[in-house]
Amino acid sequence: MVGLIVALDLMDKSKALKIAYEVEDYVEMIKVNYPLVLTAGLEIIEELSEVKPVIADFKVADIPYTSSLIAEASFKSKAKALICHGFVGSDTVKTVLDVAKKFNGEIYVVTELSSEGAKEYMLEHSNEIAAMAKNLGCHGIIAPATRKSRVAELRKIVGELKILSPGIGVQGGNLEVVKYVDYVIVGRSIYNAENPKKAAEEILNGIHRIQYEV
Amino acid sequence: MVGLIVALDLMDKSKALKIAYEVEDYVEMIKVNYPLVLTAGLEIIEELSEVKPVIADFKVADIPYTSSLIAEASFKSKAKALICHGFVGSDTVKTVLDVAKKFNGEIYVVTELSSEGAKEYMLEHSNEIAAMAKNLGCHGIIAPATRKSRVAELRKIVGELKILSPGIGVQGGNLEVVKYVDYVIVGRSIYNAENPKKAAEEILNGIHRIQYEV
Repeated sequence: MVGLIVALDLMDKSKALKIAYEVEDYVEMIKVNYPLVLTAGLEIIEELSEVKPVIADFKVADIPYTSSLIAEASFKSKAKALICHGFVGSDTVKTVLDVAKKFNGEIYVVTELSSEGAKEYMLEHSNEIAAMAKNLGCHGIIAPATRKSRVAELRKIVGELKILSPGIGVQGGNLEVVKYVDYVIVGRSIYNAENPKKAAEEILNGIHRIQYEV
Repeated sequence: MVGLIVALDLMDKSKALKIAYEVEDYVEMIKVNYPLVLTAGLEIIEELSEVKPVIADFKVADIPYTSSLIAEASFKSKAKALICHGFVGSDTVKTVLDVAKKFNGEIYVVTELSSEGAKEYMLEHSNEIAAMAKNLGCHGIIAPATRKSRVAELRKIVGELKILSPGIGVQGGNLEVVKYVDYVIVGRSIYNAENPKKAAEEILNGIHRIQYEV
């Protein structure tokens, strides 16, 4: 069954925690990014982990040495998973994967961003990066809901690997992408909603409706 | 005159501050990355700014919206400059540049990392990314001291834009690169030295020796 991941791209710790508890019945994981961690500190990962497993969406894109330090800090703060860019090369991805294994953690690799700029340089390498993530033994990839046909193509490449797909809602991605993914990542459409709990419930219902339609 | 930037990729706030004060006579700027900021908090940027201007080496590589939040947080914490990846596309670079302008800050764009993995996907786009950074009005680029001929080529593309070059020392880069750059970035060879002050002085002397040799 396709699951929902809430992206808490907020810069307000108490609001992030409040929304996490409000939506906990409808989401399988919580994704945090630097805007929240820079303002609330790494401790927010451990606090949110008490609600649901946390994915640190740090889009690691540095040389292996620095990337290993970022990975250590993330997993020590109880992140369940870390998101790393594939574009920087297999040495960085392999390095963070080695760190993840020490903590029984997971690594998800960005193939192409959901934004328009990804078409300039990332898109042409996206398939290769997906294959690299699979060959190295990563746990999954991040693929853009804003490009459904690309996600369908990436599914053929990664086989059983998990696909996490952001870009639904504000970014214009369509829920139809659920036919190819394991998790849909939604941020602003939930945390900016008047009623985040209801928004999460409706999105999850929408996911299941599409997933099970004939 | 080519200047020295110390990269404080430490995870110990008091050690980072200690080294900053020790080397202040020899460096023009201090570069901080996530390993330090994640452990010491964003406040470390403001504290280090009292010693020298700080470059937040966050290698921003996200969609424009999230990247703008990271840029806001960096400049509000008194960073003088922010490092952004170019491979994610011009929309993200333009977005962080717009934020930088509000704070009278600077944006430096990574063309290709100094690590081996950069040869897999980044290298072939590095020249295009350098041209994009110049066209958008960024303040400079980050180019690898581990590939001197590449830095020479990038210099032709960016003209008067500043070139900051990491990879000297532990990573194997050669100081000869100073002929093409404005700043050399050195981390481990300084902060892991028995005497960081002396190490910084010697590296700066080496830079000037090469710069002024006939």
